[in-house]
Amino acid sequence: MSTTIIPLLEKAQNASRSVKSSADAAKQAILRRIGALLQENAAAIMAENQKDLDAMADGDPRKDRLLLNERRIRDLAQSLEDIAMLPDPSGQLLSEKQLENGLLVRKVTAPLGVVGVIYESRPNVTVDVAALCIRSGNAAVLRGGTDAFHTNTILVSLIRRALEENSIDPDAVVLLPTDRALVNELLTATQYVDIIIPRGSQQLIDFVRQHSRVPVIETGAGVCHTYVESSADLEKAANIVTNAKVSRPSVCNALDTVIVDAGIAENFLLLLAPSLAAYNVEIFADEAAWPILEKVGYPYLQHAAEADFGREFLDFKCSVKTVDGPEAALSHIRRYSSRHSEAIITQNSTLGERFQQEVDAAAVYVNASTRFTDGGVFGLGAEIGISTQKLHARGPFALEKLVTEKWIVTGDGQTR
Amino acid sequence: MSTTIIPLLEKAQNASRSVKSSADAAKQAILRRIGALLQENAAAIMAENQKDLDAMADGDPRKDRLLLNERRIRDLAQSLEDIAMLPDPSGQLLSEKQLENGLLVRKVTAPLGVVGVIYESRPNVTVDVAALCIRSGNAAVLRGGTDAFHTNTILVSLIRRALEENSIDPDAVVLLPTDRALVNELLTATQYVDIIIPRGSQQLIDFVRQHSRVPVIETGAGVCHTYVESSADLEKAANIVTNAKVSRPSVCNALDTVIVDAGIAENFLLLLAPSLAAYNVEIFADEAAWPILEKVGYPYLQHAAEADFGREFLDFKCSVKTVDGPEAALSHIRRYSSRHSEAIITQNSTLGERFQQEVDAAAVYVNASTRFTDGGVFGLGAEIGISTQKLHARGPFALEKLVTEKWIVTGDGQTR
Repeated sequence: MSTTIIPLLEKAQNASRSVKSSADAAKQAILRRIGALLQENAAAIMAENQKDLDAMADGDPRKDRLLLNERRIRDLAQSLEDIAMLPDPSGQLLSEKQLENGLLVRKVTAPLGVVGVIYESRPNVTVDVAALCIRSGNAAVLRGGTDAFHTNTILVSLIRRALEENSIDPDAVVLLPTDRALVNELLTATQYVDIIIPRGSQQLIDFVRQHSRVPVIETGAGVCHTYVESSADLEKAANIVTNAKVSRPSVCNALDTVIVDAGIAENFLLLLAPSLAAYNVEIFADEAAWPILEKVGYPYLQHAAEADFGREFLDFKCSVKTVDGPEAALSHIRRYSSRHSEAIITQNSTLGERFQQEVDAAAVYVNASTRFTDGGVFGLGAEIGISTQKLHARGPFALEKLVTEKWIVTGDGQTR
Repeated sequence: MSTTIIPLLEKAQNASRSVKSSADAAKQAILRRIGALLQENAAAIMAENQKDLDAMADGDPRKDRLLLNERRIRDLAQSLEDIAMLPDPSGQLLSEKQLENGLLVRKVTAPLGVVGVIYESRPNVTVDVAALCIRSGNAAVLRGGTDAFHTNTILVSLIRRALEENSIDPDAVVLLPTDRALVNELLTATQYVDIIIPRGSQQLIDFVRQHSRVPVIETGAGVCHTYVESSADLEKAANIVTNAKVSRPSVCNALDTVIVDAGIAENFLLLLAPSLAAYNVEIFADEAAWPILEKVGYPYLQHAAEADFGREFLDFKCSVKTVDGPEAALSHIRRYSSRHSEAIITQNSTLGERFQQEVDAAAVYVNASTRFTDGGVFGLGAEIGISTQKLHARGPFALEKLVTEKWIVTGDGQTR
């Protein structure tokens, strides 16, 4: 067991200069070389992965996330190629101005330095994060889950080999030991680490937010509402709500609560009920919605408790809230939203725009499923996460947010 | 004494919706009305200010910062007019994309919501921050110093009057009680406050960084180096170093340490000595520099201790470090810099560019004084502060950073 990770962080910081100053083509070559090494060593990777899988209890739902097979390794190599093709976000000129005294003041993007990522069992995060950091000129400090330790160890050793072969200090990608006690050291290492990104359960994110002295980009839970307003096309509304709930309930952009105007509640819920019932969706209905669903014999009906609002279900479950119009809907969303993704279904475009303006969330939809909140869908390339905070990055964010700004000022003797 | 500020923060959050949805012209009108009210009530403001001044011990150096006289009140009104003239940073379209399925995905800027600012005795911060927050559609929660409480109280009451006269909820600008214990409540109010900006001493900033759960933009200390390289024009170098040290030693962009190449140390220091001596600058010289300055009888000469490097002097004092070339200079800066402003004086433009590329600081200069690091000088308009962190804002930042991003997605029934 290691007793401190500071020497590792110091090495990563030194190595960050090596990757920061390497040419664009070199960074692309490294990513392609990692992809080739992963495919050449697929058998060895799968053997290490099997050790991790064997250590996990049978039937553990995380097994699927942990598994690496030949197809997934090919996908990783493809993802590396995709990241290599993205433009380098560092060294971009943001503004340029010549002052009256002749000083040339430029604002440019520059790598952050050392990016720390804390995540759980998915080993593809190891490769994706390392690749995104290298592409943007940063060093990566990876703290993966204990469950994936053997897999992560071989993946990182291949990544480091590719760095070394391209004359980059291999400490630009460092895998930390998984002792729980060392996480606190990482979270307080403001001298060595420039940013921490937690990826995983709400519990992990809360822990990082609570203890980190290093600036954090939170990628948090989604408590997502879809508000079906009186003027809505009810067929479309039922379609959108069903999609938002059932297409992938385990993810953060899935629907948690349907809000419906009282005047259309009966018509709408009668349309919605069969389509949710087909997926065995359990409904926690408020007092007004319950009798409507009860009357049609909805098979998975519960009375909503207060705790069923503002709850991220991550399952085939949702709550239904009946309101007497937009003000009440907006007020419910203000109170219970986690500011991730929110939607209104309406034929009233003025109201739709007002909803988009007023609702304080990373993504606000009119007449579409909240399931679209995703870096790939929004055209950003490989996604780092979906930020639920407001500084630096909000909503889906990717490579382009792994940089900071820097003022470059050039003169010939100017004084103030 | 209040026992909690949560109700005040909740009011500010509600009021933030009122200022967020007000039209551009209305926000400008409010700022101009505040300016008029300040001038109409100058006598009353000065009377309240006198109470604060009377409570401060004679000879306290903070008295000057606390003082409001007619000229300063006129300057405040002018500053309000300047801020009114700046473009509204919210509601700007950052990107727009129509997906193949017809979804329109736009990224726009939006107000942050509630901005908390913790500062010390300068009452102009009260007016500037309130104005910048209103202009950008945010609510402001102000925690000023105890020393300025009477002054801040009347200033905020006039600001709130201007809001009310323009039909904006006056709780959009709230002055918090100054009980020290309540600061912690502000720093942990993640539910109500979107961002905290500390402005003041390093002690204050460290406290905020240590205790805040709300995201912080740090405006920190400047430990600034100027490296005089062998090829430098020594006349220019002496000029720049002197300016960077003496033009305003109490500010964060003032020089703290001169780094000089050994080969030119004697020639350079002989030029520099009389010009620093004219301002009674105390020099903490390393082993190589000391005999040179001693030989010419430099009147305020000390042996540098380890603690004199990486030290922000904020006074007519500096340290001198002799190095054997660029590598050693870069290494010294890496070790001791606070990443605020750094400079190289050189005639070698390749080396200058390398320095600007490699040095990790908010502003990196070639052949100019670090004193230029300032929002006004860089053309940003009224400055909020100089960020020494890397996320969201770096270096001088102003109105345009008081916004977040938001994804606005419009469809006609799309599902995923």
